[in-house]
Amino acid sequence: MRITFIGSGNVATHMAAALKNAGHSILQVYSPNMHNAAMLAYHVGAEAISDMKDMNAEADLYIVSVKDDAIETVVQHLSAFNKLIVHTSGATSLNTLSVHTQNAGVFYPLQTFSKQKKVSFWSVPLCIEGASEEITQQLFELAHTISNNVYRVSSDQRKILHLAAVFACNFPNYLYHVSQQLLAQHQLDFDLLKPLINETADKIQSALPVDVQTGPAIRNDEQTMQAHINLLDNNPFLQNLYLLMSEGIMKMEKN
Amino acid sequence: MRITFIGSGNVATHMAAALKNAGHSILQVYSPNMHNAAMLAYHVGAEAISDMKDMNAEADLYIVSVKDDAIETVVQHLSAFNKLIVHTSGATSLNTLSVHTQNAGVFYPLQTFSKQKKVSFWSVPLCIEGASEEITQQLFELAHTISNNVYRVSSDQRKILHLAAVFACNFPNYLYHVSQQLLAQHQLDFDLLKPLINETADKIQSALPVDVQTGPAIRNDEQTMQAHINLLDNNPFLQNLYLLMSEGIMKMEKN
Repeated sequence: MRITFIGSGNVATHMAAALKNAGHSILQVYSPNMHNAAMLAYHVGAEAISDMKDMNAEADLYIVSVKDDAIETVVQHLSAFNKLIVHTSGATSLNTLSVHTQNAGVFYPLQTFSKQKKVSFWSVPLCIEGASEEITQQLFELAHTISNNVYRVSSDQRKILHLAAVFACNFPNYLYHVSQQLLAQHQLDFDLLKPLINETADKIQSALPVDVQTGPAIRNDEQTMQAHINLLDNNPFLQNLYLLMSEGIMKMEKN
Repeated sequence: MRITFIGSGNVATHMAAALKNAGHSILQVYSPNMHNAAMLAYHVGAEAISDMKDMNAEADLYIVSVKDDAIETVVQHLSAFNKLIVHTSGATSLNTLSVHTQNAGVFYPLQTFSKQKKVSFWSVPLCIEGASEEITQQLFELAHTISNNVYRVSSDQRKILHLAAVFACNFPNYLYHVSQQLLAQHQLDFDLLKPLINETADKIQSALPVDVQTGPAIRNDEQTMQAHINLLDNNPFLQNLYLLMSEGIMKMEKN
């Protein structure tokens, strides 16, 4: 397919590279920041533009990968081309596009991307949705050229998925930060915890989290929990967080 | 070394196998449950016993790997042998042993073990502490026969380490459970989140968590956070947890 990207962030960068690799043509890359547009365009052999007026109607597909609250403005502009438009957002419903065009869909990769770190796109779950069955089928085929994990996910389901990803990714990363800070305050190397962090994520690849829960809360080990609360005496916020998480874990046991 | 294990749980099982593999002799394995003692003893070519009276004084080292609140009772019994005794607990100070014998130390593996799942012991951080410099040196050498990651960690530091491990391992696993439950309630496959969970743990192997934090809270994206809170309307506990975690992440940004 001939594809134009609106946006040059982490998602656009990884997705454009995967599509280019799979033999698709990337025609244009738009970013309000010309430097960013040029960086990505160079890598995928596309034209860089920083003014929406320079965007042409020659692509078969326009992939909108911008901040959630900027999606609608972009679509209003693009709908005049009468071509297929998709966004890549987990938190935005298909409706945000389809009020402006029926030629609309969603192409949401469920992964956390950093510009510095390579990710194999083949293992990235791609969640697709089309305004019609024909579009869904078209996106399904396109998705399969870059990923082995393609799922049909409705807008309502995608909202839940996005929320679940916050619990499974953003919140654990914050807890890694808390533990790293605790270690640093006591001259301990964060490397000490890294094998444990990896193994914890690895365990649930083949088991349900509830079946591999460990730690004082699931054992109802009140003595250890009290000792931990005492260690956090100078940080009421973390005490509160510790208590709430432990309460959740103790409920887990009862189910 | 000639080693006897008191306890036959996950830690004892993995550690005894690693020590046996490294050429040490496991003499006896004690568990109050004879079946459990026999299972481990069989694997490492040791004698299984379920009565402490059957334990002999022939070992150079006694590794106490029992529940935290049972450690002291075991040590009272063992101290008569006048041999080196270590425990494997993250939350128990060296002092619990050394009030009974000066021939004491700690041999704490910082990893989460399941009986079903193999773990390469070489990558497990081993935290050691001795009641004397001579014992510390002896444990350091022993530790290096089974792990590449050996750290000298004081009892005070080990308490912090254990607390940090709860934040970095037990709590993230609970959050995986929350996300798995959210997906299941909406007919979504937990497999969808697994690559994301792996990548999140993988990212902090080479970056500080604060530098790779993503999600609505770190972007101060109030609209998305409000939408998530609304989605959790039937679960005040998770709403509360979501708010507290997000508050922590927003503070993180300010530092």
